[in-house]
Amino acid sequence: MAPIRNARVLFNSIPTGYPEPGKTTIYDAMTTIDIDNVSLNGGFVLKTLVLSIDPLMRGMMCSPETIAYPRPYLVGQPIIGLGIGVIVRSENADVKVGDHLYGFLTHEEYSVWSNLDWLRVIKREHGLPWSVYLGAAGMPGMTAYMAWKEHSKAKKGDVAFVTTGGGPVGSFVIQLAKLDGMKVIASAGSEEKVKFMKDIGADVAFNYKTTSTEEILQKEGPIDMYWDNVGGETLDLALKYASVGAQFIECGMISGYNGSQKPIENLFLVIAKSISIQGIAVARLEDKYRTGFYDNVPQKIARGEIKYSEEIVKGLEGVGEALLSVQKGTNKAKVIILVADEQE
Amino acid sequence: MAPIRNARVLFNSIPTGYPEPGKTTIYDAMTTIDIDNVSLNGGFVLKTLVLSIDPLMRGMMCSPETIAYPRPYLVGQPIIGLGIGVIVRSENADVKVGDHLYGFLTHEEYSVWSNLDWLRVIKREHGLPWSVYLGAAGMPGMTAYMAWKEHSKAKKGDVAFVTTGGGPVGSFVIQLAKLDGMKVIASAGSEEKVKFMKDIGADVAFNYKTTSTEEILQKEGPIDMYWDNVGGETLDLALKYASVGAQFIECGMISGYNGSQKPIENLFLVIAKSISIQGIAVARLEDKYRTGFYDNVPQKIARGEIKYSEEIVKGLEGVGEALLSVQKGTNKAKVIILVADEQE
Repeated sequence: MAPIRNARVLFNSIPTGYPEPGKTTIYDAMTTIDIDNVSLNGGFVLKTLVLSIDPLMRGMMCSPETIAYPRPYLVGQPIIGLGIGVIVRSENADVKVGDHLYGFLTHEEYSVWSNLDWLRVIKREHGLPWSVYLGAAGMPGMTAYMAWKEHSKAKKGDVAFVTTGGGPVGSFVIQLAKLDGMKVIASAGSEEKVKFMKDIGADVAFNYKTTSTEEILQKEGPIDMYWDNVGGETLDLALKYASVGAQFIECGMISGYNGSQKPIENLFLVIAKSISIQGIAVARLEDKYRTGFYDNVPQKIARGEIKYSEEIVKGLEGVGEALLSVQKGTNKAKVIILVADEQE
Repeated sequence: MAPIRNARVLFNSIPTGYPEPGKTTIYDAMTTIDIDNVSLNGGFVLKTLVLSIDPLMRGMMCSPETIAYPRPYLVGQPIIGLGIGVIVRSENADVKVGDHLYGFLTHEEYSVWSNLDWLRVIKREHGLPWSVYLGAAGMPGMTAYMAWKEHSKAKKGDVAFVTTGGGPVGSFVIQLAKLDGMKVIASAGSEEKVKFMKDIGADVAFNYKTTSTEEILQKEGPIDMYWDNVGGETLDLALKYASVGAQFIECGMISGYNGSQKPIENLFLVIAKSISIQGIAVARLEDKYRTGFYDNVPQKIARGEIKYSEEIVKGLEGVGEALLSVQKGTNKAKVIILVADEQE
């Protein structure tokens, strides 16, 4: 087979504020790959199927000296994100053509790997599409499920406040909170997301861009649990309207990822109200809960017992805009880049 | 008996920064009390023996509308603080002359009470002076002991960083951490306190006014536990030099009590490092641990197994300066106002 196109998304410069498509990242369709003849040295070639656009990717757009989770992007190199691909050629005895791999993939149509250090085999079950294994049945779903298992002190009748409730983590948390009998207040940045949050059971769902978060919390609080994906001013308000002994789960602080964030003024209330704050990172919980997660969650999703919402973007050329929309919250739902259909 | 002097300390104005002796509080020696004839209506007269000067008293110097722990001072009225007194006249069947009472007392030589709602009977044992029942065997000791029992995840060999380690809470925490086999880094604001922290077992004791906290933490950290009594910049540094999974116990933030505090910049590290932060208030732990505390701690203090340090100030006329010194950290140790000796 002759060399074929191997389009990719390159990191081009470190953003100062929001990522800028065409400037901080560049879509490059000029590279090719000769799949049959590329030198593998015992490795394999992966054909990318789906890629996830996650808030945490902004954290990887930093200088290499900065601590980043899981690692900083390098200028001139493809960006990296969670994804699933299928092996199209292998010299590695542990994996064969047709196996599917999950992990942090380079944003390329095809990638050459020397080993499985950053990847693991994944199986698709219950007729779910691969995209779901990057959302409700993937890292975001694991984040919600595993942190809830590990830390939640939810009690029936308690009030939870969930931010970015239209996203894949927040929407999963809303459903877990409802399963535990909580009253759920949920915020998101569009009417479409508000509708989705109501559909999945949020008792109070509001658009923080058009409704005052403070007025909602004043009326519907105090809150016993705060699931934080945004930080900044919303975190400050959550402290203000928290009950004594409230539990805060710190999952993300996206309001500060793209510029300076309003400093927290109410941190002393942690003492006044005996609040607990728990920072979470799914990578540190996966070993403990992965088996339980895959045994339960995909099946529940297939049965409709856990609902999800996604926005499919076709082709790597859409990555730049997708990165921006996820940071700004203008995305409609969990954003998945469909790089290639299995059949192609 | 003729009317006798009943000196007191009045709250005079709400401080904008540090409390100012003679301005925000006033010593008043002009009032008298006729102990034998004052109308009690079923209450009792308490003679004040010892009063505690605690950091939290700054929080009570606020406008009455503000949430304060446990309650705001009222201009023109005596200030309030933890103390111990002895009953000198009683019409209440539950208490008799000679009984000792502990609680938030008014800063007066004698006070008239209608009931025991804010007070409880306390017994002195093991030959300890009453002052100790306001320090290591009082609220500060309870704070350290009860929060440690309830929350500590200390493991042998872990590194703890304790602030205000020369004070009654911090010095107790240093000793608890050493009992659990931790390496203890401790900070305070004078050479005298540094010496005391070393005497009670701190592995690394330093004067934060003359030594860089950051250099110490860089060299001796990362820290697995942070006991915070100060907040602000030190809290920010503790986040920076915390290990993955570190535990923060938020007991006080005195650096912000007397003016604006440097905003926290490193709060996002709570997520990056899966840090847990627990706010504590001894009032919410007392019911659970009080019996255990009094059964154990006074005895251990009497045996020298728990060490303490105190600075005795004689007479209510010293309260104003004492309030200021505790806020500035220029006190030598736990400050006790000796209002009257038992024998007088």
